[in-house]
Amino acid sequence: MLLYSDEYFMNEAFKEARMAMSEDEIPIGAVIVFNNRIIARAHNMTEKLNDVTAHAEMLAITSAASAMGGKYLRDCTLYVSLEPCPMCAGALAWSQISKIVYAAPDDKRGYHLFGENLLHPKTIVECGIMKETSIEMMQEFFRKKR
Amino acid sequence: MLLYSDEYFMNEAFKEARMAMSEDEIPIGAVIVFNNRIIARAHNMTEKLNDVTAHAEMLAITSAASAMGGKYLRDCTLYVSLEPCPMCAGALAWSQISKIVYAAPDDKRGYHLFGENLLHPKTIVECGIMKETSIEMMQEFFRKKR
Repeated sequence: MLLYSDEYFMNEAFKEARMAMSEDEIPIGAVIVFNNRIIARAHNMTEKLNDVTAHAEMLAITSAASAMGGKYLRDCTLYVSLEPCPMCAGALAWSQISKIVYAAPDDKRGYHLFGENLLHPKTIVECGIMKETSIEMMQEFFRKKR
Repeated sequence: MLLYSDEYFMNEAFKEARMAMSEDEIPIGAVIVFNNRIIARAHNMTEKLNDVTAHAEMLAITSAASAMGGKYLRDCTLYVSLEPCPMCAGALAWSQISKIVYAAPDDKRGYHLFGENLLHPKTIVECGIMKETSIEMMQEFFRKKR
């Protein structure tokens, strides 16, 4: 079986982030992978849905649980363009997801600022993959907003 | 104008919790109040919706934003039968809700175990109102489960 790389999946998360940007949403995208296959993809929709809970990760978790036919996401990996906030980290903890890979840290609302223990103790975290692309996307978005 | 008491609204949250219990869900209920009026009511639906994000508070936040016609819940109060978890506290922070009133503390997954700063700095918190009723409901639920 051809195994896709972390970069491949992160790039798919970036595609979602770009969709958010084209809809005038803060450009954050996520995919959830099980067995080398994307089972959920989502982007930030807080403005469109008028709902602070509609972060890319939250929508992806709901969608992945539906695809898995169970609410736990053990053996799944989340790829997300920005570090999850405490709300999303809390949801990821409940899901017992195996692994989280995020591109850029969020120095304002990233969960690490509030405590590493927000995640499930068994969840593995990797960060920094394609970080620059994510940062550039965010900068582009906020530059346009000014 | 007749002003309803905290006990009145908390009892409405308990009615939601009892609906959860009757659906074999962990009995947690919530209402959100604006101008002395309930604008959203919800109960835990994690099993029914097969979704770890479907906590009473999350569903109530989404519903209240829809009722308010805006994603911020300033000048709103959440009444909830159990202390919010970090996911829900994170969502409440994003919503900038004015006040949170919860009945019983959650000594396993309550947000206070992870950091008081998970909430918005302007959010006022009150706890302990009708605490025993909430604890009894939880005990009844887990006793049946055994």
